[in-house]
Amino acid sequence: MIEPIRLTPIGVIHSPFNTVSGVPIQPLNGKGIRGSIELNLDLLEGLKDIEGFSHITLIYVFHLATRHSLSVVPFMDTEAHGIFATRSPSRPNALGISTVRLVSVERNLLHIEDVDIIDGTPLLDMKPFFPHFDNRTTDKIGWLAKKDISDGMRSDDRFR
Amino acid sequence: MIEPIRLTPIGVIHSPFNTVSGVPIQPLNGKGIRGSIELNLDLLEGLKDIEGFSHITLIYVFHLATRHSLSVVPFMDTEAHGIFATRSPSRPNALGISTVRLVSVERNLLHIEDVDIIDGTPLLDMKPFFPHFDNRTTDKIGWLAKKDISDGMRSDDRFR
Repeated sequence: MIEPIRLTPIGVIHSPFNTVSGVPIQPLNGKGIRGSIELNLDLLEGLKDIEGFSHITLIYVFHLATRHSLSVVPFMDTEAHGIFATRSPSRPNALGISTVRLVSVERNLLHIEDVDIIDGTPLLDMKPFFPHFDNRTTDKIGWLAKKDISDGMRSDDRFR
Repeated sequence: MIEPIRLTPIGVIHSPFNTVSGVPIQPLNGKGIRGSIELNLDLLEGLKDIEGFSHITLIYVFHLATRHSLSVVPFMDTEAHGIFATRSPSRPNALGISTVRLVSVERNLLHIEDVDIIDGTPLLDMKPFFPHFDNRTTDKIGWLAKKDISDGMRSDDRFR
């Protein structure tokens, strides 16, 4: 009953990160790091009014995650958790989301900041971020509650 | 150079909404509305420790959006904007994201709340929500700044 879904990337993300190691863990740890989105030219009309938003949420493919595991030891822990309780790239569908700062738009090129994404990443969608809808106050943050969230955390190659 | 991506849904989302009209606009407008996720049984191991999180972000397919437009008049406005400056379902890749409350987990069934999703929606991924990483303070919210964000907004069938 469940049929495969076929998606075509809408563009490519460019960043200073060329390997799976040393990439910031989440946009917070990529603060100020610049990158860009090169949108397919035939989709140009879809950008109208996007420059009005300071933040956009990207949905992309973890294209260097070649296998998937249901149990992983995430970057931020030393214990294993179910893949859906983590943000690790080696997921059944290797989809990533990042909310980045939109700096400027130059035709089909979007200059972005707070980038935690590898160069050459295929972009599937982008949406405006609206704090009134998208921010949350949570009661429970699971295994992350025990973690020391220090600045500057970077990836290693465990999900290669 | 850009190749299609093939994804297989990890499960199905169930909700009280059976048509494209009358669905809450964003989880905020679906406050308290219950639904569930039926995860494919072969992925059960991936749920370990997810019950520790009060909120999870779902990535899913707008399966009833059969066409896409680059310019749309979104539910919340009377003027047209580029599709990437809106959250409308008729996108080049019809992907939706919603952060919902995780109420409880019963084997492969996740009971969720604050549901703004149509019954039968194919689920592609789910991730724990972590406010420290995921909340944002924005400078600019584009065309949404002029809007009256009243409670209880619901969809109509314009993107059918």
